[in-house]
Amino acid sequence: MAKALVLESKGNLSIRDIDLPGHVGPNDVKIKINTVGVCGSDVHYYTHGKIGPFVVNEPMILGHEASGTIIEIGKNVTTLKIGDRVCMEPGIPNPLSKAAKLGIYNVDPDVSFWATPPIHGCLTETVVHPAAFTFKLPDNVSFEEGAFVEPFAIGVHACVKAKIKPGDICLVVGCGPIGILTAIGALASGASKVFISDVAAPKLEIAGQYEGIIPVNITKESLEDKITAECGKGWGVDVTFEASGHPSAYDTVLACTRPGGTIVFVGMPVDKVPFDFVTAQSKEIHMETIFRYAHVYDRAVNLIASGKVNLKPLMSGIYPLSKAIEAFERAASAQPTDVKLMIKVAE
Amino acid sequence: MAKALVLESKGNLSIRDIDLPGHVGPNDVKIKINTVGVCGSDVHYYTHGKIGPFVVNEPMILGHEASGTIIEIGKNVTTLKIGDRVCMEPGIPNPLSKAAKLGIYNVDPDVSFWATPPIHGCLTETVVHPAAFTFKLPDNVSFEEGAFVEPFAIGVHACVKAKIKPGDICLVVGCGPIGILTAIGALASGASKVFISDVAAPKLEIAGQYEGIIPVNITKESLEDKITAECGKGWGVDVTFEASGHPSAYDTVLACTRPGGTIVFVGMPVDKVPFDFVTAQSKEIHMETIFRYAHVYDRAVNLIASGKVNLKPLMSGIYPLSKAIEAFERAASAQPTDVKLMIKVAE
Amino acid sequence: MAKALVLESKGNLSIRDIDLPGHVGPNDVKIKINTVGVCGSDVHYYTHGKIGPFVVNEPMILGHEASGTIIEIGKNVTTLKIGDRVCMEPGIPNPLSKAAKLGIYNVDPDVSFWATPPIHGCLTETVVHPAAFTFKLPDNVSFEEGAFVEPFAIGVHACVKAKIKPGDICLVVGCGPIGILTAIGALASGASKVFISDVAAPKLEIAGQYEGIIPVNITKESLEDKITAECGKGWGVDVTFEASGHPSAYDTVLACTRPGGTIVFVGMPVDKVPFDFVTAQSKEIHMETIFRYAHVYDRAVNLIASGKVNLKPLMSGIYPLSKAIEAFERAASAQPTDVKLMIKVAE
Amino acid sequence: MAKALVLESKGNLSIRDIDLPGHVGPNDVKIKINTVGVCGSDVHYYTHGKIGPFVVNEPMILGHEASGTIIEIGKNVTTLKIGDRVCMEPGIPNPLSKAAKLGIYNVDPDVSFWATPPIHGCLTETVVHPAAFTFKLPDNVSFEEGAFVEPFAIGVHACVKAKIKPGDICLVVGCGPIGILTAIGALASGASKVFISDVAAPKLEIAGQYEGIIPVNITKESLEDKITAECGKGWGVDVTFEASGHPSAYDTVLACTRPGGTIVFVGMPVDKVPFDFVTAQSKEIHMETIFRYAHVYDRAVNLIASGKVNLKPLMSGIYPLSKAIEAFERAASAQPTDVKLMIKVAE
Repeated sequence: MAKALVLESKGNLSIRDIDLPGHVGPNDVKIKINTVGVCGSDVHYYTHGKIGPFVVNEPMILGHEASGTIIEIGKNVTTLKIGDRVCMEPGIPNPLSKAAKLGIYNVDPDVSFWATPPIHGCLTETVVHPAAFTFKLPDNVSFEEGAFVEPFAIGVHACVKAKIKPGDICLVVGCGPIGILTAIGALASGASKVFISDVAAPKLEIAGQYEGIIPVNITKESLEDKITAECGKGWGVDVTFEASGHPSAYDTVLACTRPGGTIVFVGMPVDKVPFDFVTAQSKEIHMETIFRYAHVYDRAVNLIASGKVNLKPLMSGIYPLSKAIEAFERAASAQPTDVKLMIKVAE
Repeated sequence: MAKALVLESKGNLSIRDIDLPGHVGPNDVKIKINTVGVCGSDVHYYTHGKIGPFVVNEPMILGHEASGTIIEIGKNVTTLKIGDRVCMEPGIPNPLSKAAKLGIYNVDPDVSFWATPPIHGCLTETVVHPAAFTFKLPDNVSFEEGAFVEPFAIGVHACVKAKIKPGDICLVVGCGPIGILTAIGALASGASKVFISDVAAPKLEIAGQYEGIIPVNITKESLEDKITAECGKGWGVDVTFEASGHPSAYDTVLACTRPGGTIVFVGMPVDKVPFDFVTAQSKEIHMETIFRYAHVYDRAVNLIASGKVNLKPLMSGIYPLSKAIEAFERAASAQPTDVKLMIKVAE
Repeated sequence: MAKALVLESKGNLSIRDIDLPGHVGPNDVKIKINTVGVCGSDVHYYTHGKIGPFVVNEPMILGHEASGTIIEIGKNVTTLKIGDRVCMEPGIPNPLSKAAKLGIYNVDPDVSFWATPPIHGCLTETVVHPAAFTFKLPDNVSFEEGAFVEPFAIGVHACVKAKIKPGDICLVVGCGPIGILTAIGALASGASKVFISDVAAPKLEIAGQYEGIIPVNITKESLEDKITAECGKGWGVDVTFEASGHPSAYDTVLACTRPGGTIVFVGMPVDKVPFDFVTAQSKEIHMETIFRYAHVYDRAVNLIASGKVNLKPLMSGIYPLSKAIEAFERAASAQPTDVKLMIKVAE
Repeated sequence: MAKALVLESKGNLSIRDIDLPGHVGPNDVKIKINTVGVCGSDVHYYTHGKIGPFVVNEPMILGHEASGTIIEIGKNVTTLKIGDRVCMEPGIPNPLSKAAKLGIYNVDPDVSFWATPPIHGCLTETVVHPAAFTFKLPDNVSFEEGAFVEPFAIGVHACVKAKIKPGDICLVVGCGPIGILTAIGALASGASKVFISDVAAPKLEIAGQYEGIIPVNITKESLEDKITAECGKGWGVDVTFEASGHPSAYDTVLACTRPGGTIVFVGMPVDKVPFDFVTAQSKEIHMETIFRYAHVYDRAVNLIASGKVNLKPLMSGIYPLSKAIEAFERAASAQPTDVKLMIKVAE
């Protein structure tokens, strides 16, 4: 029996004991959870009871952005040891599936992912996890940063897909948490300058604290004019990340990207979006889409440890597990200056 | 003064003498035109007087798919000689432009392209052209095949962008001339099997003559079922080419492509198309767009010369220059069994 | 107990009963072996008792190029069924290793590979194998072709690594079995023309039967002159495959490859080879190396089934299991006209 | 007539007036030179009179690392204006050559490059240069940094070729000026950590000033042990740059790179180097070679302007043109703590 934050049903959270399987297989480790970040998807399950085809039909533990300490290891595990501080990649594929064999395990249709119904999440005292998806944190990376690896991994994965070259000029459309993390990732991936655009001032201000990130409030200035001033007429940025999911953004990303440039679609629009393929064709734009991430957890940890990436300005508040419901209510209220709330499961 | 097929204005063609500049610069060659293919865009200028922003405001010679014989060479030209049988790439960039320097000269905004207003086309007796965009035909490639290189180049370029790997299973949606040429190109690029789908039986029958191309008439059978039978449930083809431009095709290409697969957008839809980005994301689909072609003329010539590519079954009729207007009228009438009509300018 | 061809020790083969584990795990299939090809490495273990660090210290079954029929399936297997005719990929990685997760399972240091000491090979009546590394043969692919998939996979893998583009001109240096299979693979991957060079006439003659493969006997004509005639002065082929392992070839491949071209090193030289890095640099040559193959078995099967690849002219002789030692003695005698010998284990 | 540093013949430098063509073509600009860096190749021509096939047979102006101010522009030039502070890419290709059309203009055999016999360099008061190879310096980039762009471009180009992914662990073997610039480039391209190895302490100390660069003195510690400690047994760095040209380094780079990793050969060895292809194959190492650079001048300028790259610690001394010979003598004496000497042509 362990304490956990359980989504009993839509709008109905409780902190209570729950019985979980605790068997540590030969390739597994058991982790005492330390810190768990609150993600927009956790909040969406809380407020809507579902995301697309994934419906909460029975009580489910929330949380998938986690760090902790190893307290038991399986008999085949050689790369980790008891006492290691770690973070965990929340999606586990079938390693023999077609997709996993190809190295694109994130698109294995059989992947099981924390806090995606009916799979329990990690907002509880201990979890058992495959060692192959558990990553050691260097001493200079805190548990909070360890929990931050998950959302940052999305940004890093988008940058890997973008094949950013050193000195690229980039644009991120949408200044939510993932947009900001993508902009930070782009800088860490070799971009010399990253424009980030939105209509909301407070998060643009947070993004603008980073040297090299140029916030553009499109209610006050023309993004296209700024891009033209930087890149020249008839040209544009090398790489654009669509991170808003807002229908109006899809013309913007086409207009701002250079001939032969790349657009990565990160944001997930609610409905189909009318898209101007002919404009994309006239510039021979490459387009990439991402689904979560693969092979970037170690990269994200290394970038944080190196000092090149500082996520601390994005931490907006930390709550003990006993006050986790309060954290979710604050997250659900969408404070304009909040980027990331976290829950401290253990001290 | 030379004879030419001139589009005087929308719907108004004449075969008449016209005065053209004939100066052969140091890097140019002068070519006696032999054969010119009739392209859908030529017909569109004839029937509509414009394509998008390109409007026929003054008399313009049509034609951009051409072969001929060199009759004069500029003083710096060393790679070609008088008497060489050649075909010509119809778009000429500014070689010092940003795009051209990067090797993506086809997306140079300053490219000048035959029979795109106000630039004259090549349906005339002689043309002057840069040697760097003129390609020698081996003895076993006919003038008709030489004229066919231009539309085939689009298919080959789509295949280069697709990065087809040997043994790939491919799908082409849309069985018009470009769809068929793309399917032939895909086979020549390493595909082991290419499905091609349409609603029109006659062109599917022509495509189905090629070993390895599997025509699917979607008014009679389910394309998705055929793909699932071939590729397995939850999987799909490695590479899909959208070559119809029809709005209904954009869900099809997403449904039929495997996780991690590639879609190349070849067809040009009339309007924006509602596109399901979330489905693309859930499979992490790569998407490429193409604009004409670059660096494929020599490749296309080599494939035809090698015997791997046989375009002869696609030649539907040849007219002398004196009957060129008849050829355009037949093309404008869109015979279901016609793939390519050509005009013989010289014997 | 099953009959097998056992290498008792260097130079000492016997056909005898041997006791093998026959447990079929949940993800495994059991296969009745039909045909097994004789590979140069099998012969080398027979004649030398070792290859590099791999030494035959105890009796080992030879053979790793195999096809057969499924006679039992594990409880999780859904993609194959009893009675399926199949071929098998002989190397099995740890699916949770770093390399396997990345999709490059062939370079997992922990891979176990048939007939690489101390792992038994497949020249026996039945084998148990993971379903994920077992591939169904279409009806039009014979058991002999199924056994041929293994060496052909090396050629296909080399072509995948080379990123051959449609219409490329290629060169293979070395006309042994792997050189010929690589040349055939290159044609099937989009090459318009493949030169293949060697000093030995008989195998060049076999290769020259294939349309598009141009044999060059370097004792009689200059390879560099032929390449220059084809590609122009100061230029060269797009992709070169070094498939001889002979020290003299390493200058040749540099001389014959174009600026910006690719060399794939397939042949394994006995010792270090003096290599002219400065010449490679002056042309900015890309260089790839291959180790066996990954993700190409299904591609190779598809190419054979499509009719694009015909391996039958390369089959030099088939022996029943009872005469397997005779087959190995013939292989060890290196007949100049032999490409591939096979052993029929079952009728 | 203009003042210039002229290499009259091997070992024989003079500062004297020289008559140079000054015609500004329509696509050219005329630049008043401000600062010129001294490169190892300049010094080599001074001390040896030749580099490989390039022999100084008549007086030649040295220098190819330059910045200055535009004082005249050709009639077609629109991207630059009089008064712009600029740096210049020293190699000019034939824009219609095969290589230039492909975008790999640096390997055009007809490129003309400053201070490569018989082409004059830029250590003189003014030069005429194509606008397409002239790059504006932002206000926060000094003339000295502008002159530094040329050698830094080599490092950036090596990083582009390496396709560094965010968070990669890299290794540079050889801590000369180019090795240090490559290490700095790798950090700016997304590497989280860069090991750099050499036998010489002083330059390792300079490199070690950069956060993220870890100097390894191989006379005192084992490089392979350090790499294993970082990357794990059986693994290695993602990307290795060979930047020493020393024969002993070629085993090191193979031993330290991970399966599936990349080696970029930057250093130019004097002779052929015995190379262990079989070890490269067993790990399926990708290998890239570089020749100067292409498409990286703007990237390099942007990285310096962004503040991500600080080259100031590498500037060892600046001399007026009147003392240029003194600078060359110091460079020829190879002071262990010198990285880059520069010559100030104008104030």
